[in-house]
Amino acid sequence: MVHIGIIGALGYTGKEIIHYLTRHRMVKIVRLWDKAVKDSGESLDAIFPEFKNILDIKVEHFHKKDLENIDVVFLSLPHTVSMGIASEISDNVKLIIDLSADYRFKDSNVYEKWYQTAHKDKDNLKKSVYGLPEIARDKIKGSKFIANPGCYPTSMILGLYPLAESGLLKDAQVIVDSKTGSSGAGRKASLGLIFSEINENLKPYKINQHQHMPEVTAFFKEEFKLNFDLSFVPQIIPISRGIISMIYVIFKDKNRKDFRKIYEDCYQKEPFIRLCKKGEVPELKNVANSNFCDLGYLDYVNDNTFLIISAIDNLGKGAASQAVQNMNIALGFDEREALL
Amino acid sequence: MVHIGIIGALGYTGKEIIHYLTRHRMVKIVRLWDKAVKDSGESLDAIFPEFKNILDIKVEHFHKKDLENIDVVFLSLPHTVSMGIASEISDNVKLIIDLSADYRFKDSNVYEKWYQTAHKDKDNLKKSVYGLPEIARDKIKGSKFIANPGCYPTSMILGLYPLAESGLLKDAQVIVDSKTGSSGAGRKASLGLIFSEINENLKPYKINQHQHMPEVTAFFKEEFKLNFDLSFVPQIIPISRGIISMIYVIFKDKNRKDFRKIYEDCYQKEPFIRLCKKGEVPELKNVANSNFCDLGYLDYVNDNTFLIISAIDNLGKGAASQAVQNMNIALGFDEREALL
Amino acid sequence: MVHIGIIGALGYTGKEIIHYLTRHRMVKIVRLWDKAVKDSGESLDAIFPEFKNILDIKVEHFHKKDLENIDVVFLSLPHTVSMGIASEISDNVKLIIDLSADYRFKDSNVYEKWYQTAHKDKDNLKKSVYGLPEIARDKIKGSKFIANPGCYPTSMILGLYPLAESGLLKDAQVIVDSKTGSSGAGRKASLGLIFSEINENLKPYKINQHQHMPEVTAFFKEEFKLNFDLSFVPQIIPISRGIISMIYVIFKDKNRKDFRKIYEDCYQKEPFIRLCKKGEVPELKNVANSNFCDLGYLDYVNDNTFLIISAIDNLGKGAASQAVQNMNIALGFDEREALL
Amino acid sequence: MVHIGIIGALGYTGKEIIHYLTRHRMVKIVRLWDKAVKDSGESLDAIFPEFKNILDIKVEHFHKKDLENIDVVFLSLPHTVSMGIASEISDNVKLIIDLSADYRFKDSNVYEKWYQTAHKDKDNLKKSVYGLPEIARDKIKGSKFIANPGCYPTSMILGLYPLAESGLLKDAQVIVDSKTGSSGAGRKASLGLIFSEINENLKPYKINQHQHMPEVTAFFKEEFKLNFDLSFVPQIIPISRGIISMIYVIFKDKNRKDFRKIYEDCYQKEPFIRLCKKGEVPELKNVANSNFCDLGYLDYVNDNTFLIISAIDNLGKGAASQAVQNMNIALGFDEREALL
Repeated sequence: MVHIGIIGALGYTGKEIIHYLTRHRMVKIVRLWDKAVKDSGESLDAIFPEFKNILDIKVEHFHKKDLENIDVVFLSLPHTVSMGIASEISDNVKLIIDLSADYRFKDSNVYEKWYQTAHKDKDNLKKSVYGLPEIARDKIKGSKFIANPGCYPTSMILGLYPLAESGLLKDAQVIVDSKTGSSGAGRKASLGLIFSEINENLKPYKINQHQHMPEVTAFFKEEFKLNFDLSFVPQIIPISRGIISMIYVIFKDKNRKDFRKIYEDCYQKEPFIRLCKKGEVPELKNVANSNFCDLGYLDYVNDNTFLIISAIDNLGKGAASQAVQNMNIALGFDEREALL
Repeated sequence: MVHIGIIGALGYTGKEIIHYLTRHRMVKIVRLWDKAVKDSGESLDAIFPEFKNILDIKVEHFHKKDLENIDVVFLSLPHTVSMGIASEISDNVKLIIDLSADYRFKDSNVYEKWYQTAHKDKDNLKKSVYGLPEIARDKIKGSKFIANPGCYPTSMILGLYPLAESGLLKDAQVIVDSKTGSSGAGRKASLGLIFSEINENLKPYKINQHQHMPEVTAFFKEEFKLNFDLSFVPQIIPISRGIISMIYVIFKDKNRKDFRKIYEDCYQKEPFIRLCKKGEVPELKNVANSNFCDLGYLDYVNDNTFLIISAIDNLGKGAASQAVQNMNIALGFDEREALL
Repeated sequence: MVHIGIIGALGYTGKEIIHYLTRHRMVKIVRLWDKAVKDSGESLDAIFPEFKNILDIKVEHFHKKDLENIDVVFLSLPHTVSMGIASEISDNVKLIIDLSADYRFKDSNVYEKWYQTAHKDKDNLKKSVYGLPEIARDKIKGSKFIANPGCYPTSMILGLYPLAESGLLKDAQVIVDSKTGSSGAGRKASLGLIFSEINENLKPYKINQHQHMPEVTAFFKEEFKLNFDLSFVPQIIPISRGIISMIYVIFKDKNRKDFRKIYEDCYQKEPFIRLCKKGEVPELKNVANSNFCDLGYLDYVNDNTFLIISAIDNLGKGAASQAVQNMNIALGFDEREALL
Repeated sequence: MVHIGIIGALGYTGKEIIHYLTRHRMVKIVRLWDKAVKDSGESLDAIFPEFKNILDIKVEHFHKKDLENIDVVFLSLPHTVSMGIASEISDNVKLIIDLSADYRFKDSNVYEKWYQTAHKDKDNLKKSVYGLPEIARDKIKGSKFIANPGCYPTSMILGLYPLAESGLLKDAQVIVDSKTGSSGAGRKASLGLIFSEINENLKPYKINQHQHMPEVTAFFKEEFKLNFDLSFVPQIIPISRGIISMIYVIFKDKNRKDFRKIYEDCYQKEPFIRLCKKGEVPELKNVANSNFCDLGYLDYVNDNTFLIISAIDNLGKGAASQAVQNMNIALGFDEREALL
């Protein structure tokens, strides 16, 4: 049994990691940590009664000595906080999977610009792998430090990757119109998140100013030396979970080509990427509570604009289940363990 | 034109009062006050864009001198805060309508026990009228100080009043199973109110410990010297607005009588009480955004238990529109003005 | 008093027209017709209890002789059905406002292609005015036959009109990513519309195949001899009412110009068009239950792409309240009567 | 591997059974049948894309010869239809688990009265076990025919059973105020179920006329020769899944006793019954997508009225997962297999 600890267990993402791991046959959650509990710790099911009869464990404040018995640590923490802890514990465990943004930018300047803070752990940054299994599976295998991608970026990168890999994104203009559920904003008291504000509403926010935007451009720059023109329009809709991105790729060239085959070739062996049938579209409900990314439409909406619709569960493939998938790959387990 | 000021304009109730009053032909909102704005004030539509092109006014901090030009003040404030202000301004205006709990209990001991604070304005308390128009219309006429009832109590008292008035509640046991939308908790950042916590959930809370419970018993004691056995089970459901109370009245006597006629007689001339047809039940959607209280079922569910289902909009008849109805009566306007 | 009749009163749009008209001081609803009631008719509040104590009227089957006393007829019917009736009654009343698509296309060929049916009333088609008040106010004044625009087209045309009028849409590419509430699909039993299918979901549908798309292009062709490249991606989200359209206008030219002033000039006197402040965006909740169209962002998202976000209530400005606004103008009433 | 077939696979319950069984390590779904597909059959993921990459199987019309290879059949069919098929196939398979009401009433007269149809398969009725594992585990072991309980009855019976077993329900009056999500009404086109009717609404229905009411009374009569006075007030709220029942037990006796221990003793070894801590209450979100029944409050709300709050997922413990739990017990598997 591989022993797991989760730091930041009481957010929506932490809770979701616990859910997936309780179904995992080769690992065991042995430690949960979170600052929000009182000094003496609190039992998990006192905070989240849904875990009663499923997992009997205490949530405690983190102390480094607790790591003795731990193989893998999931960090489900705000940015900055994450690198503060990761830098201290990376020698003590076999694998760290960090769900914050702290290790997602190989170029720390981009990180520092968008997150307005200095990077404090460039050693681990160098070692870390950007954990998108469909793209970086080989690097993830045996890795010791995985930066789990952001939710929006997962939906966007998986939608754009086949075009990028085929050299088609060069000179293209990309507009992404994304809609997310409210859990993406985290489990925190905030006036903008209360039910009466979200219900019967759609709210665009942080247009072209969302910190997940440079994560996408940095990825393609790093991977393909590719610069392309990206506009990003995120919106919050009244659902608990899910992200669906309408990705409009506007080519200079008006000769419509059938890119469908490119997608089929690229993803045909992927267990968690599903292409919709020709003429069909993804719907959020199909990916809820799952690790799937559904890609669809995959056709032109006019002479020069190709539309990819990409749907994921923001807490699943956009966070927790992708983290588990990364762990499975890193440790040599069946990639699908606990995820179907 | 009657000049109106609202203190505490930026909560859900304050906003709702503004909505109703902008449709009123005999009054004019001339002042809005709220602590939440900056010192220099902010325009209403910068905070609530829904009012743009409807009402062009600033929201400011309250100063007593602003009352010069004001006839009626609505207080939409937390308890305690309300009596602090009301006590200072009651001589300066013609009518105060207070939407807090501060003036709802003629017996200040009950108030002090449930709200855990001393009552600081017993003078106005003595003068104030509990503003349920269907029951206290005559007292409201010409009144200078109206205590607007709570949302749950409005749904319960209107449901029980015809029985009480007929002497039937004596010795009866009453169980009220109430469901409310989340706006009832106010416009405030609170973890328990965020969308992901409320959506796809039903949460019972404060069973027999809700401060609206003594408001009901105190009312019937005051009005009829009536003590009856009340149990109250409030629940929050994923809707923005509305309260529906299932009121089970359990009689000692098993001789079922037709109480329908009692309800018809009691409410036949009421513009805002609607009795469902025989065999029919109220639904929340029918009272949304309205001042109506729909009462239905009005039949036995067994040999000794009579069920009244009472539905209101918690922000309408349960707060803002009832306040406007009270103002209409107090000032001698058509009671329905701005409310249909 | 102007006497009103509504044919097709029991759909969501019919119901909404009733709501607005009950607040109108110069008109009176005297007849409601709908096929769905039994032969002897049914009282409105038996079907929609929300109208009890508001409007006491029967809903009956339509017979032409009922028009004797009627000045204005609203047709809230499916396409084809509408022109069948309109052609028979247009001589009998002073004003017809048709909410179907039957009279929206001056070029009946476009209608016939998209609606797959022959046009049966070209006489009235010729006389009819496309009722977008902000654009066709002068034609609406005194008109006898108004084709009320579709919901999506209202949001799109109002968003694009200032650019079109300024000659800027020529050669531009337009992508519209629209999200609608489920009431837009009508009040009908359909598996795709049931709560469990819509809730916690977002579903794209009829991409580039929606019948509201040619309504937009036909309008601009008719009005400005303008052909432009339009892609339309409609989506259904779990809300009851509202449409928000992200309108991306992609220019060939990369010299960003400040179009904000164009919008301000175009709409400055409009009572129901509201421009968001610089840097702000519309939200659906601000236009719910209203006749407003909120336009915002109004800025570039990259060097050559201008984004307009346009929000309306699909049942309000997208249908019923716009129909009332049209009536107000046609009959010479204050345009805002019953709409604020 | 035990081979499974599901008849009526395309309803919400059928779909849910598939979900649970794809996680089961000792069984394999080999046949899915449903009348709704075309004659040549359709692949499951063409109808429910959520199963793509999870289960590759066709859904076909049922023919008896298909049973050759099948060990266990789940019947997820409307009442009447179920007994029509069960009577024909019961000799051909090892175990039938019927999710309709057809085999839930040992006394067929009660069934015939409430379901208004003659019982056509009294042989199997005699053999069948009412599959509430917590109560009938011993009978379920080795059984060949299991009648899976209704959703509301599961929530009610599990809440009342400890009192009944202790002889305390005799002479008690019981009022059940239940709220359900809309999936309980099935996956069917119905005007009352569409989003715009359910959203922002609460609708009571079939008060004391719901067919699940006699299921509860018949159970206690059969099991304990117990007759008690039951009133049942079901309500639909805007959530997809979940049932929460407020069960008010009104005793003649006013000597409050601590019944908590009775519940603890009764359910202490049950893997899927969870008692809330003293003073705590169940919430629907804690049982969503699970086989748990959470029981809470378990205290008096006045001198003679004991309140049990019982929460389940109507599609889980109220249908599909309970069916799987029954199968696990009948076949001697670990009862929790596929259910945690």
